[in-house]
Amino acid sequence: MLYVTRRAEFSAAHRLFCPELSDEENHDLFGPCSHPSGHGHNYVLEVTVKGEVDPATGMVINLRDLKQVMQEEVLDQVDHRHLDIDTGLLDGKVSTAENLTVAIWRRLQNRVGPALLHRVRVYETARNFADYYGPESR
Amino acid sequence: MLYVTRRAEFSAAHRLFCPELSDEENHDLFGPCSHPSGHGHNYVLEVTVKGEVDPATGMVINLRDLKQVMQEEVLDQVDHRHLDIDTGLLDGKVSTAENLTVAIWRRLQNRVGPALLHRVRVYETARNFADYYGPESR
Amino acid sequence: MLYVTRRAEFSAAHRLFCPELSDEENHDLFGPCSHPSGHGHNYVLEVTVKGEVDPATGMVINLRDLKQVMQEEVLDQVDHRHLDIDTGLLDGKVSTAENLTVAIWRRLQNRVGPALLHRVRVYETARNFADYYGPESR
Amino acid sequence: MLYVTRRAEFSAAHRLFCPELSDEENHDLFGPCSHPSGHGHNYVLEVTVKGEVDPATGMVINLRDLKQVMQEEVLDQVDHRHLDIDTGLLDGKVSTAENLTVAIWRRLQNRVGPALLHRVRVYETARNFADYYGPESR
Amino acid sequence: MLYVTRRAEFSAAHRLFCPELSDEENHDLFGPCSHPSGHGHNYVLEVTVKGEVDPATGMVINLRDLKQVMQEEVLDQVDHRHLDIDTGLLDGKVSTAENLTVAIWRRLQNRVGPALLHRVRVYETARNFADYYGPESR
Amino acid sequence: MLYVTRRAEFSAAHRLFCPELSDEENHDLFGPCSHPSGHGHNYVLEVTVKGEVDPATGMVINLRDLKQVMQEEVLDQVDHRHLDIDTGLLDGKVSTAENLTVAIWRRLQNRVGPALLHRVRVYETARNFADYYGPESR
Repeated sequence: MLYVTRRAEFSAAHRLFCPELSDEENHDLFGPCSHPSGHGHNYVLEVTVKGEVDPATGMVINLRDLKQVMQEEVLDQVDHRHLDIDTGLLDGKVSTAENLTVAIWRRLQNRVGPALLHRVRVYETARNFADYYGPESR
Repeated sequence: MLYVTRRAEFSAAHRLFCPELSDEENHDLFGPCSHPSGHGHNYVLEVTVKGEVDPATGMVINLRDLKQVMQEEVLDQVDHRHLDIDTGLLDGKVSTAENLTVAIWRRLQNRVGPALLHRVRVYETARNFADYYGPESR
Repeated sequence: MLYVTRRAEFSAAHRLFCPELSDEENHDLFGPCSHPSGHGHNYVLEVTVKGEVDPATGMVINLRDLKQVMQEEVLDQVDHRHLDIDTGLLDGKVSTAENLTVAIWRRLQNRVGPALLHRVRVYETARNFADYYGPESR
Repeated sequence: MLYVTRRAEFSAAHRLFCPELSDEENHDLFGPCSHPSGHGHNYVLEVTVKGEVDPATGMVINLRDLKQVMQEEVLDQVDHRHLDIDTGLLDGKVSTAENLTVAIWRRLQNRVGPALLHRVRVYETARNFADYYGPESR
Repeated sequence: MLYVTRRAEFSAAHRLFCPELSDEENHDLFGPCSHPSGHGHNYVLEVTVKGEVDPATGMVINLRDLKQVMQEEVLDQVDHRHLDIDTGLLDGKVSTAENLTVAIWRRLQNRVGPALLHRVRVYETARNFADYYGPESR
Repeated sequence: MLYVTRRAEFSAAHRLFCPELSDEENHDLFGPCSHPSGHGHNYVLEVTVKGEVDPATGMVINLRDLKQVMQEEVLDQVDHRHLDIDTGLLDGKVSTAENLTVAIWRRLQNRVGPALLHRVRVYETARNFADYYGPESR
C-alpha cells in the first residue's frame, strides 16, 4: 500500500458566523473571524490517496488525473470566491477548516478510483490546518 | 549603513474593481479577481528600514518598536478585514499589491525614526509580490 | 473525527549532556551538540488535537483557546530561555527533541478538552523533528 | 514509542518510461515526464524511524548515525545522478516517487536498529509526494 | 516607480560541461555536476518588472500577461526538458544558473512593456541562486 | 555583472547584553533577549557575490569554493557555539543580527576573489533579518 499526496492552493474569502447567534455572540465566539465583510486566506489543500502500485506504470494514481479532479471538484468551486456566498460546497455550515475538509472529502471520495481517498488536509494559514480521514476513521 | 527587515502576516479579503467600468469590463481586466463577493489572501508584509548601527545597542532600530508600529499602523487596520470596505488605507483605489505597498509606505514613513524607511514589500501569494522604495526612487 | 493542528515557534538555547558521563564521553556521544556553553534553535512546535466537530461552531476546538494553552503551558516556559537551565519542563532529562515532545505532551494533555491531544511534534531544525502520540501509542 | 524524522535533499534526473510501450503510448500515459532526454528534480527525502527513547541519551536513534546511513545508502547512489541510468536502486522499474519510496525502504530497513523504520517519504516537487510504510502496512 | 515580481517553477535536467575540456578536467572543475548522464532540479524563476502604476487599474503590469509571457518564452521551452539537449535557450553555453538568467533576460526583455524588465532570478536549489539585472547593470 | 548567492544555516546560542548597563536596564532595552542564560536560533546566512561570468565555466564563482569559504570562515566558528562566549567574531559587541552581518563581511571580503562581496544577510528568525552591503554602501 502506497500513499500519494498532491497539493494545490486557492485564494478565497470567508466569514465565521452562526446565523442563530447575534453579531455580539458571534464576535465572542469567533473573534475577528466573524467581522461582517469577511476576510480571506491563501488556502492550501493537500489530498492523499492510497492504493497498490500498478506494476506497469509505477503509479497509485496518475497525478495528472488527480490534479484534474481536484481542479474540477474543488478549485473551480472555491478559487477567487467567497466560501459562504458563492459556493454550495458548505451547505450553510460554518466555513471552518474542519467543515471544509469534510465538504472536500465528499466531493472527492468517488473520484479517485481505483485508489482510495485517505486524507484531506486544509491549511487556513501556515499555522493552522485540519485533517479529515473520512467518516469511518477514529 | 545597515538594513533591517521584519515580516508580518495578515489575512484579508479584497476585490479588484474599477467603479468606472462595467462588471463585464472589470472581468475582462481583472479576471476572477473581480468576482463581486470578493476573495482573500494570507498577505505577507515585509518592512525594511535602514540606518546606522547604534554602537551601544548594536541595533538600527529596536525590532520591538518596529513590530509595534507595524501592528498599530497596518495590521490593526487590515487583519481579518475586507481591504476595500473596512479600511481607509486605500482611499478608494484598486486594492492591488502595488497600491497596498504605497498605502503602507505612507503609514510607516514617519514612524521608524531615526532609521529611514527603505522598502515595503507585500506578497499577495507565494508567487506574486510588489515592492515600493518610496516616492523618490527610480 | 477531525484533527486540528496549530503551529508555534520559540527560540531557545540548550545543550545535549549526560551528567553521568565525562565531557569527552559526552562529546563522543553528542558531538558539537554537547559544547559546554550551549547552542540554540528556532524550535517549531506543532500540536494536534482530535475530536468531533461541534455542529454549531464547526470546530473541534476553538483555535484561540488552543493558542492560549500553548502559550501558557509551553511558550511562556521556553521562549527566549535555556531549556536545561531555566525550565522545569525537562526535569533534568537530556533536552533532545524526543524528550521535549514528551514533556510538552504532559503539559498539554489535560488542557485541550473536550478534544483529545493526538500528537506533539517538535522541529529542532527544518531537517530534524520528533513526534509523540502519548503513552498508549505503539 | 517516539518517532524521529530526518530530511535530506538530492538533485537527480529521471524519465518516466515503460519499455513495453511505444514512445507515443508513453507520452499518452506520462505526458512530458516521458520526454526522451529526461528532466529532473530537487527531491526531498524524509525518513522516519520509531522506537523507545534510551533514558541515558534521550534519543530513539543518534541523528548522526541516521544521517550517515541515509548518505551511504541513498544520497551517494542518487545525488547528481540519473535515476534510470546510473543507479541500481530501481532495478529497471519506472522511476515514480512511489517506486522510489519502496526502493529506499529496502535500502534502509535493516540499517536503523535498534529503532524500526516507520516511513519513507519522497517529495518530487513541493506539490507531489509519496509515502511508504513498509510491506506490512495496510 | 513600483516593482512587481512573479515566481514560477520548472523541472529540468542539465549537466555542467565544457566541450573543450576532457571528462576528467570537467570533473575537476564541476564535480558531480558534470556527471555524463546529467542530473536535475526544480528550478524557481523569479521575474521582476518595474514601472509606473496605472491609476485606473492600480497595476504596473497585468500579472495575467506576465504569467503568460513567462509561460510562452521560458516554461514552454524548459519545463520537463534537458536544458543542454532540448532547448536553444543556452546556445551551447554551460547551463549554470548565471547563464540561465542571461538567456531568460533576453527572452523576456522586449515582452513586458510598457513595464521594464528589472531582474531575473533563478534558484537552482533552495541554497543557490543567481540574479541578473541586464547588460547595463554594474 | 551577475550576482550569485549561497545560503547556509547554523545553530547558535546568544544573549543581547550591554556590559555597561545593569541587568534591569538590559531587560528594558532588549526584553527577553537579554535573559542571562541566553537563548538561540537556527540562523540563516546568505552570502551574495558579484562579478563577470567566466565564459569558459559560465560561473561568477565556483559555488564549491564559496561553500568552503563560508564553512571555514563562518560556520566553523559559530555553528553549535554560543556567539558571545565561544567566538572571537564579535569582539565583544552585542550579538545582534546587524553586528553579525558586519563581522561576517569582514571575514569574507578578501576571500571571494576575483568576485566581489556584495551582500551579507543574516536571518535570526523567519521574521527578522539584517543586510550589510559593506562599508562604502549608502
